[in-house]
Amino acid sequence: MGALIVFEGGDGCGKTTQVQLLAERLKKNHQILLMREPGGTDVSEAIREILLNPKLSVKPEAELLLFAASRAQLVRERIIPALKMGLFVICDRFVESTTVYQGIARHMGLQAVEAVNKIALGDLVPTVTFLLNVPCQTSRQRIFLRNGADFGLDRMEREDFSFDGSIQNGYLELAKQHPDRMVVVDGTPDPKVVSDTIWEHLKARGLV
Amino acid sequence: MGALIVFEGGDGCGKTTQVQLLAERLKKNHQILLMREPGGTDVSEAIREILLNPKLSVKPEAELLLFAASRAQLVRERIIPALKMGLFVICDRFVESTTVYQGIARHMGLQAVEAVNKIALGDLVPTVTFLLNVPCQTSRQRIFLRNGADFGLDRMEREDFSFDGSIQNGYLELAKQHPDRMVVVDGTPDPKVVSDTIWEHLKARGLV
Repeated sequence: MGALIVFEGGDGCGKTTQVQLLAERLKKNHQILLMREPGGTDVSEAIREILLNPKLSVKPEAELLLFAASRAQLVRERIIPALKMGLFVICDRFVESTTVYQGIARHMGLQAVEAVNKIALGDLVPTVTFLLNVPCQTSRQRIFLRNGADFGLDRMEREDFSFDGSIQNGYLELAKQHPDRMVVVDGTPDPKVVSDTIWEHLKARGLV
Repeated sequence: MGALIVFEGGDGCGKTTQVQLLAERLKKNHQILLMREPGGTDVSEAIREILLNPKLSVKPEAELLLFAASRAQLVRERIIPALKMGLFVICDRFVESTTVYQGIARHMGLQAVEAVNKIALGDLVPTVTFLLNVPCQTSRQRIFLRNGADFGLDRMEREDFSFDGSIQNGYLELAKQHPDRMVVVDGTPDPKVVSDTIWEHLKARGLV
């Protein structure tokens, strides 16, 4: 079996950069599969288009179920087959995003979120989840510099609650509940320093 | 409050015909809203395109969650507001389709199906659900005559299990569990006769 490595955190925490830096390092000696959520299969990409379309006003309950549907497809069509072939699978967001964004920030209730997560994942559990922790102000500044004011922001990023601390606190709470497989990493230093920290964690776990 | 009237049954049982006949009758004295599942809102129609696209191989778990997402949107954007305005809402398929097709025929487990149904519906319960009961052979003949061999059959209708009796038995079992709101109607007679039977039921319930 391979390993499923997940990157989580609010918008602007540096997930995508860290996914790329880890992928470059792993590629030297391993076969890897990069996944982004929602997306990664034809079905999941079609679902992604619905979720990120600013013209569609998706209700919170439908949003929860669409994220889970996208993931259910991704898990069975790509992730489980890849792990069985011994690949490293790297996910930019995964199940913790649903728990935090839908369960906590959208008040959908943890019981409902856990029920759909269970359908989506079946028996699959991430090998390790890195939570990139940065202060809300830093995230906001990074998003501003990346997009220029609010131009080009998609629906999820336009939500005010992304930056009020509830997302970050939700993630930190989850990490406390799963200390065995969730690792909180300070996301404020230079990306290469963060990447080294992550690499050391993977080494310590005997994964690389 | 208005009334939510649902038509259920396997493909070829005559749902769409009965929905139209009832709508014509109701229209004379009432405001009505016709809904088809999956669909009925911009979000739900986009989901419908994914579900019925023969090029996409949707996994059973993703299918369950997509149907529920479509319904969650439909319930909150259209059905509940319509009922609050006193309309008659007529649905061509609703929550029982998920229970039977995903829970029973696709072996997704009734607990999982009930969990997603609960998220999709919230506190909403159909006022009355008419189950159009026809022998499997009759359904198969009707589908054949409608489509000509298998030309034009969409993904759901191409499934063999539609006609092996499991769908019909699943519906009948559900009707036994909810005798208060589910009415089994013989769907084999002439459509006008079936429509009269349905009208008499609605009269007996004081709805028309």
